[in-house]
Amino acid sequence: MASGTRRRLVVLGSTGSVGEQTLAVAAEFPDRFQVTGLAAGRNLTKLAEQVRRFRPDAVSTADAAGAEELRARLGADAPAFIGSGAEGLERVAVHDADFVMAALVGALGLQPTLAAIRAGRDIGLANKEVMVTAGALVRREVAAHGGGLLPVDSEHSAIFQCLAGQQRDDVSRLILTASGGPFRTWDAARIAQATVKQALNHPNWDMGSKISIDSATLMNKGLEVVEARWLFDMPPKRIDVVVHPQSIVHSLVEFTDGSVLAQLGLPDMRGPIAFALEYPRRLPLDVPRLDLTAVGRLDFETPDTKRFPCLELAFAALAADEAAPAVLNAANEVAVAAFLASEIPFPGIAAANAAVLDAHVSSTGDRSLRDLDDVAEADGWARAQAQEWLAASGLGA
Amino acid sequence: MASGTRRRLVVLGSTGSVGEQTLAVAAEFPDRFQVTGLAAGRNLTKLAEQVRRFRPDAVSTADAAGAEELRARLGADAPAFIGSGAEGLERVAVHDADFVMAALVGALGLQPTLAAIRAGRDIGLANKEVMVTAGALVRREVAAHGGGLLPVDSEHSAIFQCLAGQQRDDVSRLILTASGGPFRTWDAARIAQATVKQALNHPNWDMGSKISIDSATLMNKGLEVVEARWLFDMPPKRIDVVVHPQSIVHSLVEFTDGSVLAQLGLPDMRGPIAFALEYPRRLPLDVPRLDLTAVGRLDFETPDTKRFPCLELAFAALAADEAAPAVLNAANEVAVAAFLASEIPFPGIAAANAAVLDAHVSSTGDRSLRDLDDVAEADGWARAQAQEWLAASGLGA
Repeated sequence: MASGTRRRLVVLGSTGSVGEQTLAVAAEFPDRFQVTGLAAGRNLTKLAEQVRRFRPDAVSTADAAGAEELRARLGADAPAFIGSGAEGLERVAVHDADFVMAALVGALGLQPTLAAIRAGRDIGLANKEVMVTAGALVRREVAAHGGGLLPVDSEHSAIFQCLAGQQRDDVSRLILTASGGPFRTWDAARIAQATVKQALNHPNWDMGSKISIDSATLMNKGLEVVEARWLFDMPPKRIDVVVHPQSIVHSLVEFTDGSVLAQLGLPDMRGPIAFALEYPRRLPLDVPRLDLTAVGRLDFETPDTKRFPCLELAFAALAADEAAPAVLNAANEVAVAAFLASEIPFPGIAAANAAVLDAHVSSTGDRSLRDLDDVAEADGWARAQAQEWLAASGLGA
Repeated sequence: MASGTRRRLVVLGSTGSVGEQTLAVAAEFPDRFQVTGLAAGRNLTKLAEQVRRFRPDAVSTADAAGAEELRARLGADAPAFIGSGAEGLERVAVHDADFVMAALVGALGLQPTLAAIRAGRDIGLANKEVMVTAGALVRREVAAHGGGLLPVDSEHSAIFQCLAGQQRDDVSRLILTASGGPFRTWDAARIAQATVKQALNHPNWDMGSKISIDSATLMNKGLEVVEARWLFDMPPKRIDVVVHPQSIVHSLVEFTDGSVLAQLGLPDMRGPIAFALEYPRRLPLDVPRLDLTAVGRLDFETPDTKRFPCLELAFAALAADEAAPAVLNAANEVAVAAFLASEIPFPGIAAANAAVLDAHVSSTGDRSLRDLDDVAEADGWARAQAQEWLAASGLGA
């Protein structure tokens, strides 16, 4: 394929795990992809390497000092634009591109991702918080501006792959798989005593501490239910979760004829990344092949919402109003931080989340998300509520 | 949908299992389907009922006496055309229709299916022998006449469903699942002593005796490999078989990016039938839903070609020449009949098949299938060889 028709990529969060793997895929297929923009935080060494290798013409860093240092390090290799902070991030997000990989972590990614959506870009979505906190809003903006929204985490990519070539009216149910986390086989009494170290010990994936705790509470799966609801515009009652400890079946779709399609593979983020980049085609990746006979056995269990109440909280939030998932997400961030700081026991996370969500539901009427200010307001309110609840309950520090 | 745009169906083999279930699906969606032709054998009672219910205008029976009796039974309800034998069958096969369900059993179905293909019809293929014995020829005829070829058995429908919306250049491997049959866990010595009754005792499906034995030898899976090779135009080295005792995963497709799609469901032929009829859409079927948590566990094993040599014979036949699968199929029919008649022990089936295939490979050069005469010749030669081998080995009657 001629260089002129290469797909132009912007990577937001280029020095993070998904960002790096996105660039690895782009590097493997230089005839298919051209990197035009990169945004990162404070890892200037890695960012400078990426700039030298991929020659983007727009780059952004966390702050002005970082931008200056990057310019100094790159010297003659400095790109035309080096920005910083929220402004630089947004400028890179709407820089000349076909595809924007939204791989920032946290609320920071909301504004630039929305800017890229409004610029009509195809979006690769790895930044969970975007759909979790602002799903209803994002869905409307995508519909209004015509770009594609391509999921990058393994469960939603699995569903997206199962939906390719199918009519959405023929879909009856999305089935997300969950590993069940490190406490899948623990009884409630033991879970109540779980230490931070035990909660961080995820069976199948090596992840950051926040997401590891979310995996242990099943809040992570709950947040993925929220994402699925908005990514695929699917009513929550048609989204199910099954526990699948081996994490080989990444998710499934049931159709109106009773047929179920599933996507399987060894855990490797390059698959979902490449599928988002090249959709509807696939890239020949040099990844380990799944050998089902080596795996031998796949198990499936009903999630136990008694031991893991966070999963149902996500459904409750979806049933409440558009802002409730943002509230739940913010409360959860506060509660998980408190657990990681050993300020509350493990079940305190679910208790805090439930209390804040209840307070939200009883304090407000049906609340829609008109803009990011509404999201920020819900987020801020929930954080304050969570802190208050932790203090009042005697659990918080 | 207006009656004028209903899909017109011909069902060849309408009183058999797939034929009846095809009509059941058509009856459930009278606005979508209109039955224009039916062909059956000697079950005149059932055929007469079907004619009264679906009002086709062309019908055929096994022989002239049957046709006369049917006309007498139907009286004023008799359709415009009632034929019989090979001529009647072919006339119904090319009767006014959009879709022909080829659900006859055995070599009988070859000629009318080929006639329907040459008439440009979409073909629902349940008649295994068509692709097993004449796959190369059928593939060429389909390409020349532009109709669709829609698999109806569960494994090939599964692959077809996984391929929907995917590019064939992105496919790296087809993976057929096999239940493993009743002797999956038996050692070779015990298999050598297997009785007819034991071999007929299939764990997951209630089937006819020929196919039950083929399932016990894994010849059935071998023949499905042959079908898959021609249905999907896939080189045999890119077709694998895994044993999956629960028969929930009906088959899988691996893509060049390492991703694997699988189709799952409870065993119910209405799913594959409806998918073929309505492709690329799906029909809302009232079939039992798969609950993976109720199934609990899915197992996968490598097929043991030492205990079940028939599977490798199919690959050997595909590697030999276009006629070799027809040879293997014919030898197998003779050998299975001999086993069912208690004339040979269970391992005699594989031994007879191997001997006849070997004789074919060493007696002929590369032989292509130009027409059905070539298929018939290979078939006849192999049956004679098999009988001879059974007699010479002292195993046959």
